[in-house]
Amino acid sequence: MDKNAFFWLVQDGALPTPKAAATLGIDIVEVDGEEGTIEVFFNPTEAFTNPVGNIQGGFIAAMLDDTMGPALASTLKAGEFAPTLNLNVSFHGPAKLGQIKGRGRVDRRGGQVCFLSGELEQDGQIIATASATALIKKVG
Amino acid sequence: MDKNAFFWLVQDGALPTPKAAATLGIDIVEVDGEEGTIEVFFNPTEAFTNPVGNIQGGFIAAMLDDTMGPALASTLKAGEFAPTLNLNVSFHGPAKLGQIKGRGRVDRRGGQVCFLSGELEQDGQIIATASATALIKKVG
Repeated sequence: MDKNAFFWLVQDGALPTPKAAATLGIDIVEVDGEEGTIEVFFNPTEAFTNPVGNIQGGFIAAMLDDTMGPALASTLKAGEFAPTLNLNVSFHGPAKLGQIKGRGRVDRRGGQVCFLSGELEQDGQIIATASATALIKKVG
Repeated sequence: MDKNAFFWLVQDGALPTPKAAATLGIDIVEVDGEEGTIEVFFNPTEAFTNPVGNIQGGFIAAMLDDTMGPALASTLKAGEFAPTLNLNVSFHGPAKLGQIKGRGRVDRRGGQVCFLSGELEQDGQIIATASATALIKKVG
């Protein structure tokens, strides 16, 4: 954990929330930059809905990416970033408008290669689970 | 292909574009409801960007879901729908603001289980590929 890393500068209010995260209505409840774990809330809008009024699966995938990504980002040093290489999402059931809770974690943190997992929950039900692979790189 | 199916009612202008698809700035260029193939354009906005100004991976996943989904939807009968069960995305490289081209197809269409694939391209480069599993269900 490095308080000068991008994630913590945002978290401490020195830098603005990334636009994609703001679009998803993210609210970080708890984050542990030593363990690489996070708990967040999302507030989806009608703009994310499919014809039957549920949240389109792609936006669920976006929320999962934006749960697991920050879990890893909280562990990075200043000057490091970690693009997602692969994202695998399983959709357990429909998600409707209303608050969605996300939990993400770093399952394995190598020097470069990291394996992440996470899940989304609504009204106490799992709506989607995911795993991802990310690669730590240095800026410049 | 069934011209009374939801996809074609939208395509023919009888029903509005689903909100999630409109949010992604979708423009369907070509679709073959017999073959289950589609070509689309997306026009991402700044609202989808990460801190370095590229499109956040989750929104790339959303675009891929909204490429493969309509490829399958174009083959459905009225009263059928096909939720995505699983979505797997590989991120080949960064996507910047500007038009993104998507191609999607039904690789295997069973009575219920369907396997889909698709890719996104920007400035002639593949930026992401994906596969998905969907299940055909009947409304009601």
